[in-house]
Amino acid sequence: MLRRKRGVRLQRDSTRWSFELCLTMKMSTPAWVFALFLLLRGEFCCGHDESSSTTINPCCHYPCDNFGVCVRVGLDGYECDCTRTGYYGQNCSTPEFWTGIRDFLKPSPDVVNYILTHFQWLWDIINATRMRDWLMGVVLTARSDLIPNPPTFNSKYDYLNWEAYSNITYYTRLLPPVPEGCPTPMGVKGKRELPDPDELVNKLLLRRKFRPEPRRTNLMFAFFAQHFTHQFFKTNHRIGPAFTLAVGHGVDAAHIYGDSLERQLNLRLLRDGKLKYQVVDGEMYPPTVTEAGGVSMWYPPSTPAEQRLAIGEDRFGLLPGLTMYATLWLREHNRVCDILKAEHPTWDDEQLFQTARLVIIGEIIRIVIEDYVQHLSGYNFRLKFDPTLMFGSTFQYGNRIALEFAQLYHWHPLMPDSFLIDGDDITYPQFMFNASVLLHYGVDKLVHSFTRQWAGQIGGGYNMPAAVIKVAAETIKESRLVRVQPFNQYRRRFNMKPLTSFRDLTDDEEMIQTLEEMYGDIDALEFYPGLMMEKPKPTAIFGQSMVEMGAPFSLKGLMGNAICAPHYWKPSTFGGQTGFDIVNSATLQKLICLNTKTCPYVAFQVPPAGFDEHKHTREPYTEL
Amino acid sequence: MLRRKRGVRLQRDSTRWSFELCLTMKMSTPAWVFALFLLLRGEFCCGHDESSSTTINPCCHYPCDNFGVCVRVGLDGYECDCTRTGYYGQNCSTPEFWTGIRDFLKPSPDVVNYILTHFQWLWDIINATRMRDWLMGVVLTARSDLIPNPPTFNSKYDYLNWEAYSNITYYTRLLPPVPEGCPTPMGVKGKRELPDPDELVNKLLLRRKFRPEPRRTNLMFAFFAQHFTHQFFKTNHRIGPAFTLAVGHGVDAAHIYGDSLERQLNLRLLRDGKLKYQVVDGEMYPPTVTEAGGVSMWYPPSTPAEQRLAIGEDRFGLLPGLTMYATLWLREHNRVCDILKAEHPTWDDEQLFQTARLVIIGEIIRIVIEDYVQHLSGYNFRLKFDPTLMFGSTFQYGNRIALEFAQLYHWHPLMPDSFLIDGDDITYPQFMFNASVLLHYGVDKLVHSFTRQWAGQIGGGYNMPAAVIKVAAETIKESRLVRVQPFNQYRRRFNMKPLTSFRDLTDDEEMIQTLEEMYGDIDALEFYPGLMMEKPKPTAIFGQSMVEMGAPFSLKGLMGNAICAPHYWKPSTFGGQTGFDIVNSATLQKLICLNTKTCPYVAFQVPPAGFDEHKHTREPYTEL
Repeated sequence: MLRRKRGVRLQRDSTRWSFELCLTMKMSTPAWVFALFLLLRGEFCCGHDESSSTTINPCCHYPCDNFGVCVRVGLDGYECDCTRTGYYGQNCSTPEFWTGIRDFLKPSPDVVNYILTHFQWLWDIINATRMRDWLMGVVLTARSDLIPNPPTFNSKYDYLNWEAYSNITYYTRLLPPVPEGCPTPMGVKGKRELPDPDELVNKLLLRRKFRPEPRRTNLMFAFFAQHFTHQFFKTNHRIGPAFTLAVGHGVDAAHIYGDSLERQLNLRLLRDGKLKYQVVDGEMYPPTVTEAGGVSMWYPPSTPAEQRLAIGEDRFGLLPGLTMYATLWLREHNRVCDILKAEHPTWDDEQLFQTARLVIIGEIIRIVIEDYVQHLSGYNFRLKFDPTLMFGSTFQYGNRIALEFAQLYHWHPLMPDSFLIDGDDITYPQFMFNASVLLHYGVDKLVHSFTRQWAGQIGGGYNMPAAVIKVAAETIKESRLVRVQPFNQYRRRFNMKPLTSFRDLTDDEEMIQTLEEMYGDIDALEFYPGLMMEKPKPTAIFGQSMVEMGAPFSLKGLMGNAICAPHYWKPSTFGGQTGFDIVNSATLQKLICLNTKTCPYVAFQVPPAGFDEHKHTREPYTEL
Repeated sequence: MLRRKRGVRLQRDSTRWSFELCLTMKMSTPAWVFALFLLLRGEFCCGHDESSSTTINPCCHYPCDNFGVCVRVGLDGYECDCTRTGYYGQNCSTPEFWTGIRDFLKPSPDVVNYILTHFQWLWDIINATRMRDWLMGVVLTARSDLIPNPPTFNSKYDYLNWEAYSNITYYTRLLPPVPEGCPTPMGVKGKRELPDPDELVNKLLLRRKFRPEPRRTNLMFAFFAQHFTHQFFKTNHRIGPAFTLAVGHGVDAAHIYGDSLERQLNLRLLRDGKLKYQVVDGEMYPPTVTEAGGVSMWYPPSTPAEQRLAIGEDRFGLLPGLTMYATLWLREHNRVCDILKAEHPTWDDEQLFQTARLVIIGEIIRIVIEDYVQHLSGYNFRLKFDPTLMFGSTFQYGNRIALEFAQLYHWHPLMPDSFLIDGDDITYPQFMFNASVLLHYGVDKLVHSFTRQWAGQIGGGYNMPAAVIKVAAETIKESRLVRVQPFNQYRRRFNMKPLTSFRDLTDDEEMIQTLEEMYGDIDALEFYPGLMMEKPKPTAIFGQSMVEMGAPFSLKGLMGNAICAPHYWKPSTFGGQTGFDIVNSATLQKLICLNTKTCPYVAFQVPPAGFDEHKHTREPYTEL
């Protein structure tokens, strides 16, 4: 069962690399000085074949296929550990018998996607029967099996160890970093210098003309994405891109309740389980920072005190879209508290608060799967949030956010050129850090407006607004600091065929030419640029790679939540059947309707032309 | 699937309790004053039936059987959530069809234990065949299924919530605390006052005459137990018994490497992956505190600097038996580093250190299962450490140490009246905090002596040495602070029949009478005293309850370790096949032989009279 392969000696190869490296370094004086310095430190030495440092790490070649683990052995050898990969051989490239059968029968991601997005009649049948449950279980298992749990590598460690496992201040990594000291920044392929990030984003990602998302995705979706994901994407920029401030590593609703007990207590009313709030025009809004014990929030110094709203996540004063969602969840939390208190008059503030929090987490997960991911997928298959589908499987409850997940989720092309609210056209400078947009228009009008404004297409390039283009450059810079492996390595990791040329990535001739100039080799293309430039299918929000890589991280995080575990997923966890029913019937439309005055129509896509809101069928909402 | 039961109204019952409570309180002035205070605060009110506070929490009756979850509903009602318990009905007491069949067929723990400890011929066959693997899988699954993961309650929360799940500074709890405000400290049964802990331990637990452990358990075992368990039992006494300082919640070898990165770095040589050491008489010992960057250690002020040895766990200077094991693991770690470095000359200090640590964790787990638990169990079935046995099951990797596990592991009756080393009789005051015992005799002589000195029997009472009797009283006091449920509730939780009288617990008439006087009701007997006084079988170290409760915690913790997960359990994780082989062949005897001069005979039991060490067959040890 446990195979051991003595790897090929890459002596010839590595000698060549050493030689070339020396040559390159000696060409310019600064490099020469650097080489001398290394020589003096004994860390680098040209020509001494016996020294460990003369040889290139053979793992720079990524020799191990099919999830095999590359380990350096001796001075210049390597081994691929193929244990339980289903493959064997020196580089884990020969399938075992059953793996071969499986590989032969398994349809390609493209075929699966085609089936899922066509044949409406077939899906109508499946969606109405028990086949829906079975298929949802298959989807969840297939996706989440790609994410190892317990987590494996991180940006410091390209091998398994206790520190990487136990230190949760790191993002985990699905693939280890590019080994140190490789001939090129991406391993052995591509140029010796990566393209300038600012030049790259300006030439290839910057919006030329707003390209609307073909699936009619709207700003309600865009802000939901941002609001939802920032509970677990909290890069600790003070320390570096390898680290995160999010201790929960998943859907812990820290963006509503704060990421520390101290912050939570400041945000809580400490009565009836509720969160603090203020009433403006008869409606509930987050309290001011002053009212919330002075919790830290990101606001420019010029922001007046009454507009400094206090929210679980300190960055959510940035955009009124985020503050709007924060307001909705605040209202929902306090609404759930009222319902729980009516059923459990003996419960204290703490039990009401804690139980309401679990209800809210359950609602979030359901809305994310059944509204948000459903929209994102474009599937005719109706997704279902049902933790019991995973019971009896080897699925592991628990999650660690991966750096690659944080990288790929920079979906800034969703953002419009300006914001159209209730007939007003609001620019970025007017919109940012401006809580008065929320307080002036109110939640109802914002929901109405955001539902009707198109978001931009994420994939395909040339669509990131100038206002946020810097973020893309920063993302690329950070990925280099932590040596993220090339795009094609991630294609392999997620069971996709590696691209053979830039022409596989896109049809855009200008883009192809620029990428050729910048990277020189498709195998050296970086992870995030690859994802952002990959050509989407005509009616898709982004390319195949984003779907195939994003979905496993996403579903693993959602279903790996503690509330989905067998001991948790039961009525008593949510305060009884009433609370459980709230979780089991949560929808975006309900979240809005139960927490606004006018119950405006809401969706993650712009309604079609001629849409009559009043004729549109909505579920009747009876207050629980 | 999700059942909901509206509970019985306990109005009558609760009124009676309120009345009785008032009566009791009014009998003495201080109680009367207290009642008035509560009345003024509106928290307590006799006679007002409408107030929520007049009624007793119905969960004080522990109404829900078979792991059903008790939830208060309305003013005085309750619900038992029977979801996935296999039972239904108001109190989850009626078995579903298949549960009934299973319950009927399932042999009692006594029967299983009898089979496992008899029929040597049968076990010889099983141990030699693949049935061993199958049965080991059954044992592991049956035991670990009793421990929920993700963890559930803690000492603050008797209901599931995100704080209890995510705050790892708490010990978890298998059963929630006794509800607040119950009629008696143990719920509704027993006396209104629990017995004085000091009186209890002096009357019932204090050693009268040393009673040797009938399975010939020795001090080598006793010190191993203490050394091994203190990596995860680290009650944070500064905050309270509900909290722990052990962040790893399992076998993380923090007792060797320190529980923080800072401590670890101080203990590391930062060369070749090794730990710092000093050489005394040609042998390797832990460095002094001064040499290890002044890491904090528990030593009395009088301890001279050269005897202040620095160890991962700050309490391990307490007893030379602990310091001896610390020395052995230090030597083993550095030995493994040498082996790894020979295979991987390119690896830096960090990779050698981290990989050696995983090898050490693997060795510990194997020795614990195959030597330590094997001895403890007394089974003729030969236990096996093989993580692949759990693959494909629903087993969850991860662990949270439970307060009940920490409580039950106070095995101080193992300790002798004094320590016999190399012909010397050493008293407790001479033994404690005295590193010179180790440095003077050396590891070889200590191993020889500890292997030959009998440990005391843990169960049955009257066998805890006076030198440590205070620990038992403290344990009981702590259990009250965090309101640990009664012994019988834990019997139920671990699928044992609750005892019906103190006569079920023990045959000792004096003990029965004292317990009757102290507790009044077997259902009010406390957890730890129950475990310690339960009568062991004639050849057992403790009673049935300790086995049935201890084994699940233990095996869950061992097999739930990250290294046992499918993505971890492969040669590359341990540096290749060589490291993996070390893990897969680790034994106590090997740990000793490979790290001592004379390779003394070692076991967890005293060798029989007339034992000739030199004739005893040992595995031949070839240095790897």
